[in-house]
Amino acid sequence: MTKITLLIHCKDQSGIIADVTNFIAKNKGNIVYIDQHVDREQDIFFMRLESEFTSFSMEDFTTNFKNDLVAKFAMKWRIYNTEAKPKMALFVSKYDHCLYDLLGRYNSGELFVEIPFIISNHNTLKPIADSFNIPFYHIPVTKETKAEAEAQQLKLCKEFDIHFIVLARYMQIVSSKIINQYPNKVINIHHSFLPAFVGAKPYHSAYKRGVKIIGATSHYVTEELDAGPIIEQDVTRVSHTHAIDDLIAKGRDLEKIVLANAIKLHIKRKVMVYNNKTVIFS
Amino acid sequence: MTKITLLIHCKDQSGIIADVTNFIAKNKGNIVYIDQHVDREQDIFFMRLESEFTSFSMEDFTTNFKNDLVAKFAMKWRIYNTEAKPKMALFVSKYDHCLYDLLGRYNSGELFVEIPFIISNHNTLKPIADSFNIPFYHIPVTKETKAEAEAQQLKLCKEFDIHFIVLARYMQIVSSKIINQYPNKVINIHHSFLPAFVGAKPYHSAYKRGVKIIGATSHYVTEELDAGPIIEQDVTRVSHTHAIDDLIAKGRDLEKIVLANAIKLHIKRKVMVYNNKTVIFS
Amino acid sequence: MTKITLLIHCKDQSGIIADVTNFIAKNKGNIVYIDQHVDREQDIFFMRLESEFTSFSMEDFTTNFKNDLVAKFAMKWRIYNTEAKPKMALFVSKYDHCLYDLLGRYNSGELFVEIPFIISNHNTLKPIADSFNIPFYHIPVTKETKAEAEAQQLKLCKEFDIHFIVLARYMQIVSSKIINQYPNKVINIHHSFLPAFVGAKPYHSAYKRGVKIIGATSHYVTEELDAGPIIEQDVTRVSHTHAIDDLIAKGRDLEKIVLANAIKLHIKRKVMVYNNKTVIFS
Amino acid sequence: MTKITLLIHCKDQSGIIADVTNFIAKNKGNIVYIDQHVDREQDIFFMRLESEFTSFSMEDFTTNFKNDLVAKFAMKWRIYNTEAKPKMALFVSKYDHCLYDLLGRYNSGELFVEIPFIISNHNTLKPIADSFNIPFYHIPVTKETKAEAEAQQLKLCKEFDIHFIVLARYMQIVSSKIINQYPNKVINIHHSFLPAFVGAKPYHSAYKRGVKIIGATSHYVTEELDAGPIIEQDVTRVSHTHAIDDLIAKGRDLEKIVLANAIKLHIKRKVMVYNNKTVIFS
Repeated sequence: MTKITLLIHCKDQSGIIADVTNFIAKNKGNIVYIDQHVDREQDIFFMRLESEFTSFSMEDFTTNFKNDLVAKFAMKWRIYNTEAKPKMALFVSKYDHCLYDLLGRYNSGELFVEIPFIISNHNTLKPIADSFNIPFYHIPVTKETKAEAEAQQLKLCKEFDIHFIVLARYMQIVSSKIINQYPNKVINIHHSFLPAFVGAKPYHSAYKRGVKIIGATSHYVTEELDAGPIIEQDVTRVSHTHAIDDLIAKGRDLEKIVLANAIKLHIKRKVMVYNNKTVIFS
Repeated sequence: MTKITLLIHCKDQSGIIADVTNFIAKNKGNIVYIDQHVDREQDIFFMRLESEFTSFSMEDFTTNFKNDLVAKFAMKWRIYNTEAKPKMALFVSKYDHCLYDLLGRYNSGELFVEIPFIISNHNTLKPIADSFNIPFYHIPVTKETKAEAEAQQLKLCKEFDIHFIVLARYMQIVSSKIINQYPNKVINIHHSFLPAFVGAKPYHSAYKRGVKIIGATSHYVTEELDAGPIIEQDVTRVSHTHAIDDLIAKGRDLEKIVLANAIKLHIKRKVMVYNNKTVIFS
Repeated sequence: MTKITLLIHCKDQSGIIADVTNFIAKNKGNIVYIDQHVDREQDIFFMRLESEFTSFSMEDFTTNFKNDLVAKFAMKWRIYNTEAKPKMALFVSKYDHCLYDLLGRYNSGELFVEIPFIISNHNTLKPIADSFNIPFYHIPVTKETKAEAEAQQLKLCKEFDIHFIVLARYMQIVSSKIINQYPNKVINIHHSFLPAFVGAKPYHSAYKRGVKIIGATSHYVTEELDAGPIIEQDVTRVSHTHAIDDLIAKGRDLEKIVLANAIKLHIKRKVMVYNNKTVIFS
Repeated sequence: MTKITLLIHCKDQSGIIADVTNFIAKNKGNIVYIDQHVDREQDIFFMRLESEFTSFSMEDFTTNFKNDLVAKFAMKWRIYNTEAKPKMALFVSKYDHCLYDLLGRYNSGELFVEIPFIISNHNTLKPIADSFNIPFYHIPVTKETKAEAEAQQLKLCKEFDIHFIVLARYMQIVSSKIINQYPNKVINIHHSFLPAFVGAKPYHSAYKRGVKIIGATSHYVTEELDAGPIIEQDVTRVSHTHAIDDLIAKGRDLEKIVLANAIKLHIKRKVMVYNNKTVIFS
């Protein structure tokens, strides 16, 4: 049995859904999930589809789909083996809350993912990686060594066939060298309700502005700081009784959950990116 | 141009999506929305589809769809003219907040619906109906006159070709006589987070229990009190500083929004009911 | 019986609470509410207190309190007759949702306030004002007539002894001429989660940025646009399925509730302003 | 410097606040926090106060306060050393998510508490306890051995001078033998929005009922199952797309945060219990 997940986007046109579902029926596939979205302002069609085939391989699908449909509709498309676990690299720094949270979920089987290694610019969190038996690479980063450090990081990612990178409060700006290798595949957690409080120390800015609600935002990293496509956001209520440290503590819980949810959406290939925004299928 | 909204549910089987989308393509229709859900526990397939045809009427669709597909998959199905405004009857009692809210939305064009009349067991809210120029029928209800009152209500509903009924804090239990004529078409707003606090005075019960969050629930009315399929719920945080009157005041805002959202979902035919639960399409 | 509400702030010092409560006990008052807050970063003390006296007038309190305590602690303070309804001026433009909402609450007694009149730069909403029997003044505003229009507005406010002004989607920038007469007494509702999306068309900006949550913010108006002290905020979840019009419709419900809540807090004198932030007592 | 936290409740009477603040001033104390609440329905007064003394010990306070004020107002009261870390016993079973979450917070210093040991009726989670270097006692519980097991549990609690017990998804009903020794000191996390779905398998019941929001509730354990005073609750939105396993996964995040927040409130002595409800000071 071949199980595939298919993502398509293209200019909105008549007949796409019928042609795609037809293609699957013709090849004896069963559609187990279909969802679609049309951005009426931009006139773009998006589709996510899960299908099962008894005698039609991923290669068969790829070849035939390309011939029959991709050119016809000028589709941008991706296909995944639904049953293959993606490989995720974890980048951390000194904060442990997102790391603990993700490894706890990983350990209990909540995340359908492999984590071949953890990279950090500090040695602080090595004991946590050790207690979960995950290899830990300490790659210090200074202004001078940054290019070299990123080369090392990329080498490791290649070596372990990493599919996507998670910055779990990594606290370093990742350069285009990495972003270009992993477009819409570097997931960051920013500790504010973006676009409010871009950049460093958002809890301090939120405190100063006197907001009554704080948030966290998980997004794909692009070259513009904290301006990439938003995958997930959540918020919580605060008041004048909360000092900056209280905001930081409350924010940690938001960061953990928002990042974990964004990762789950990415793993299940439920996120499509266009125009620096996301379509999130249910 | 014929615009239709189609709702289907049946046992989950291979090929349904392909057959339906094929049927539409064959008849030169364009699918503008498709969403589906499979309840894996019950093995039931649900689908909502919007389609546009240039030379295929609703009657054509109905006849052909029945012949080609309904029997094949043992479908339960409904078809609607997407552009036809459903007719909604409003039942109220003495509370005005949901009435003001709904009429304000109606007036500004937010609700795609006609409201031919308002029925109440009291005369209290007649001035509001008058100020919005909507006919108001005062039909008092006592234990003795209930059967007769409901007969009058049903007569009005028939006369005006009412599609669904909204109990906007109507405060009376509606009997099976009405429910059977309008199955899954009588929408109630209950002022608690069901299934907590079924029945009368839920805010008093919430206060007594010392809950930290209160809610409101909009559901289709069935014969069992406050136990029908839930369409929409929302909640808000409360504390020990809130007396019962504060809960009631905070609850009013929940009731207004939850009821309005449930009505909008119903109007857009986004709700499917089965096993006393709802599938809510996005 | 004299019922007073007292607000105090000053540098944090030992003995303030004891001295104030002592003062009240000495004058045979009963404290029915006391709450305090210390901003540890700025070292400022805030207090809100409600008290009842059988034979001690507001004038007595004012004179004696000034002599006994104000100088000693270098207090900034205000005193209110708890039972006096404040007078509120409503400024609107063409949007009716906040107006309907506030007048519905006013009519049902939910707002402890008098509304002597409504001012608008358009005639559009006059029928609503009429149906609630509230005088409506149409004062057009153009670039050229703005100064004169504001003079007229202020004249009306003086004439009716207005205590505070509510901009219920007034859509005009209010100049310092008005702000200076009503410092921290002009309440605005901005249709975004400030500080995100300051200025015009925030729903369009939110749509463009692809946020997953939208908000509304009620704040006191200061000379810097949308940068005044925040009184209340709330948010709601949105997705890629929401077009701009859907954001606007969902936002209307936020605006109504956030503005109403901010007004209630102001009416109950639960808001204290300092450093462009608010302390909100419970 | 002596830092105390004082909790008082009694019948509401004139002059309590003045007398208490006076008592502190007289003894050269500085009040750093005061909050009060009056339940007007029951006519009960509640107060929480933090104070600092340079030459007045906890023993001095206790003796003098008793003489001067306790009898006069028929107060129920408790006094704590603000700087003393309470000792907390953790009871777990096989679920690891709350345990990981609490130990992660404990490790990072977020919880002002000591955890002398973890008790479980299974050996499953011992490795986690080990990795955090916390003694783990495996005390199996069967119907026959329950009384003996609880005796062992109590013996450990006494031995380590435990102040309160946290049932972090302990999955066993705790008998009155333990509850009576720790009245309002056994904190449970129930995986529903109480009072909805009392008892076993609440996620299954929520799924069956088709609710649109699920919740978690932390409460003090009393003899009636899941009916004790509620400390904290939180909720999250679900839909028909969530199978039972999805509800369970989403619920885990609620459980973690709600339990952690309830524990923090308890540790800071911000919770007062009466009439099976709680007053939660800010």
